[in-house]
Amino acid sequence: MTSDLDPDRREREELLRAIGGFAQDQIDGLTARPAKGTMGQEGLRIAEEVSVPIAEDPLEGGIERILGLLERAVQASFVTPHPGYLAYVPGGGIHAGALADYLGACLNRFTGLAAEAPALCRLEADVIDWLLAELGLDPDAGAGGVFTSGGSLANFAAVVTARESVLGEGADLRRAAAYVSAQAHHSAIKACRLAGIPERNVRAVAVDAELRMDPGALAAAIEADARGGLAPFLAISTAGTTGTGAIDPLTAIAALCRHHGMWHHVDGAYGAAFALCPEGRRALEGIQLADSITADPHKGLFLPLGIGCLLARDGEALRRAHQLDADYLASGEEGEPPSPAHLGPELSRPFRGLRPWLALMLHGAGAFREALGEKLELARHFHRELCRADAPELELLGPPQLSIVAFRLPRRAEEPLGDWNRRNVRWLERINDGGRVFLSKTRLPVADGAAETLRMCALSFRTHRPQIEACLEEIRRSVREEGEG
Amino acid sequence: MTSDLDPDRREREELLRAIGGFAQDQIDGLTARPAKGTMGQEGLRIAEEVSVPIAEDPLEGGIERILGLLERAVQASFVTPHPGYLAYVPGGGIHAGALADYLGACLNRFTGLAAEAPALCRLEADVIDWLLAELGLDPDAGAGGVFTSGGSLANFAAVVTARESVLGEGADLRRAAAYVSAQAHHSAIKACRLAGIPERNVRAVAVDAELRMDPGALAAAIEADARGGLAPFLAISTAGTTGTGAIDPLTAIAALCRHHGMWHHVDGAYGAAFALCPEGRRALEGIQLADSITADPHKGLFLPLGIGCLLARDGEALRRAHQLDADYLASGEEGEPPSPAHLGPELSRPFRGLRPWLALMLHGAGAFREALGEKLELARHFHRELCRADAPELELLGPPQLSIVAFRLPRRAEEPLGDWNRRNVRWLERINDGGRVFLSKTRLPVADGAAETLRMCALSFRTHRPQIEACLEEIRRSVREEGEG
Repeated sequence: MTSDLDPDRREREELLRAIGGFAQDQIDGLTARPAKGTMGQEGLRIAEEVSVPIAEDPLEGGIERILGLLERAVQASFVTPHPGYLAYVPGGGIHAGALADYLGACLNRFTGLAAEAPALCRLEADVIDWLLAELGLDPDAGAGGVFTSGGSLANFAAVVTARESVLGEGADLRRAAAYVSAQAHHSAIKACRLAGIPERNVRAVAVDAELRMDPGALAAAIEADARGGLAPFLAISTAGTTGTGAIDPLTAIAALCRHHGMWHHVDGAYGAAFALCPEGRRALEGIQLADSITADPHKGLFLPLGIGCLLARDGEALRRAHQLDADYLASGEEGEPPSPAHLGPELSRPFRGLRPWLALMLHGAGAFREALGEKLELARHFHRELCRADAPELELLGPPQLSIVAFRLPRRAEEPLGDWNRRNVRWLERINDGGRVFLSKTRLPVADGAAETLRMCALSFRTHRPQIEACLEEIRRSVREEGEG
Repeated sequence: MTSDLDPDRREREELLRAIGGFAQDQIDGLTARPAKGTMGQEGLRIAEEVSVPIAEDPLEGGIERILGLLERAVQASFVTPHPGYLAYVPGGGIHAGALADYLGACLNRFTGLAAEAPALCRLEADVIDWLLAELGLDPDAGAGGVFTSGGSLANFAAVVTARESVLGEGADLRRAAAYVSAQAHHSAIKACRLAGIPERNVRAVAVDAELRMDPGALAAAIEADARGGLAPFLAISTAGTTGTGAIDPLTAIAALCRHHGMWHHVDGAYGAAFALCPEGRRALEGIQLADSITADPHKGLFLPLGIGCLLARDGEALRRAHQLDADYLASGEEGEPPSPAHLGPELSRPFRGLRPWLALMLHGAGAFREALGEKLELARHFHRELCRADAPELELLGPPQLSIVAFRLPRRAEEPLGDWNRRNVRWLERINDGGRVFLSKTRLPVADGAAETLRMCALSFRTHRPQIEACLEEIRRSVREEGEG
């Protein structure tokens, strides 16, 4: 171990070998371990156990001890990279993304401004242009985009762009009104709050039976607000809700926004990447009419956590909202690629675009299309199996719009909502305790409130047919036990 | 090469070996290459050369060809990790940070909410608590913080927190007024814009001869705005300006803010880390009185680009501004560590805290203190040498407040400002063309406008006495040539 910050090549290579070996063990060990981590009070005990003082000297025991602490710490976590992890929205985290992070950090170039790294920014822009084209936006007609750390900041940059484009700088934000569906991700609402839009003016528009935003309700809300003296400026559709994968009626909402001079942002953090495969593209019809789109490569492109993306029909709108020059910043050359710092909230940033670029170069776009098509088919298969006559009696939310299936134990006659919800939560725990798969839940509207509903999200690149079969088996087993218990 | 997204261990190890070897070559090759990259039109030609179509199949030639493209692309960039890179604010990017990125991405755990990874969030919180204590804020008295992707988002989260804490949700932002010095980093102004503060209400307060904010001018501006019906809510001091490393009078500004019920944010993106060494701590006296502080570990802790930090005296203020719950988010346990998603704008995020944690475990805090003390001494040495009687005749901005020294060729009698500026810009180009060091410039106020001024920032962990001597030699050589030319 060295106390110098600048280890020589031999030391660097030794550390990389140690950490690389540990990482491969972790990856290869996933299938042998339960899909459920050690959580709760035991998780907190592990947290205390691994917490060591930050001392003046290197930790005694060096990299072996450090990796021992990390091995223990990782036990107390949701096993997001596990093939059976079907909770929330899991991408898995392909290895190419980790390689890109290591290399990008070793190169440590400044990629905020193309003037300081034109060729690296070019590679990043190539991926952005490819994503734009896949989503039906035309980079040659001025479409542009930027990678962020995740969907929250992509949604935030979209709200700022909408605010500046529609209302202009220094407008009275107390009058600004924005619209999301009642099923929207909370980051869309948080984005409005961060951008100074009063929470009271962010409307949760009603959804239809398939949990898609009701364009009639949206139109009514916009008109009522305009009559009331507010300035409706932004509708945020969701292309793939976190709860059930519902896709709002994108074409109808785009038309409404155009009619009212509003910005139409599509939060496709989860769903937009499905445009890469034919069935997904059909499901996302209308997304190409959006003013801006959030797509998270750490979801639909299976990259490790830490990369979102905002795409916009008019890249200049991103620039007008975000570019601010300073005399100490390098100025650009004619013909250089776009500068990420001009299109989003960051200046210094990691060379994030290297992740999808390296992954696409190593694997080819076809591998991503194929994997995304497979996930849609896995969800359809799962749904079909739960619809079979010999399947356990369940309440199923309609055929999957993307790769999420939502389901719950049916309510018993005259069962109070609280009891029903507790039964479903206990059921989820029983399924997860089996250790083969890990599901999460959401709350969906029912006549007398919100019903705890289980959900299966097939998205990880490691999730294939065997995990879906295991999930079906766990459902059958646990329902049978419930019947016997 | 595989077209599968899930390569086996052998393939992963081969790729890691190839990329690891390339990265070590790049690091070891730094000293043999010029500190100046290939830029301008030639840089753009390289950008075109490396741009290859994103195809359905893996790139032919595999990892060798991919690394060839990257090797070429990196040539067209500012050589930010070079030991002689003394431009802007260079941390260098220690290898431990790259190791952490690889490992964090392979583990790919969700660290936005402590409920999903309590032990990993604990390690991250340990680093935050250590940083808080180093800056004189007390985690046991409620201080808290969060890692961001850089200083821009840390400053932004600070402005949002100030806005919510002082003005409250849904206030009339057209009346909100914020104050920065005329030397503040543009990200402070951009943060206000993003948060919905009208640009016309962001005041650039006058600075004194040492380019520090003038507290008298600040008090006058606040009082005038309050009389004019505005609501002054935030002053942003700078602890280490980008131009010259000036430290605003933190104690006086803190007192003014307290008097007026305003939030005092200190942008210490560059400077705050110097609190780790005794001389730096003295220079930063008063920083412990701030309501919040930006500190960028990718600057003062020498980590690779991609990690900033916001620290706050009252962690609950961060939480009130940023926490927004949703029914599909995991809920927390009593006694768990703080959740980064509750304290900043992100939800999904990379496991960023692993970078400083691993670096501190591998190297110990002492190595960082020592390196920071060394940088201060390098700047003092550089300044002393330029003050010597036999040094070239230069205009020097007073002894360095931190590790930046600003200097320029003196103005000739009756020389028009434009001519003087062009002479200094040409001079900078001549120094940089030497290839041993790379400097940047800033524009500083003079009686009839702004003067182009060169600056030397000693911060990279790779920068030591030999680079400073090389810089002095290049200055002497180029001034002599200028005299002869």
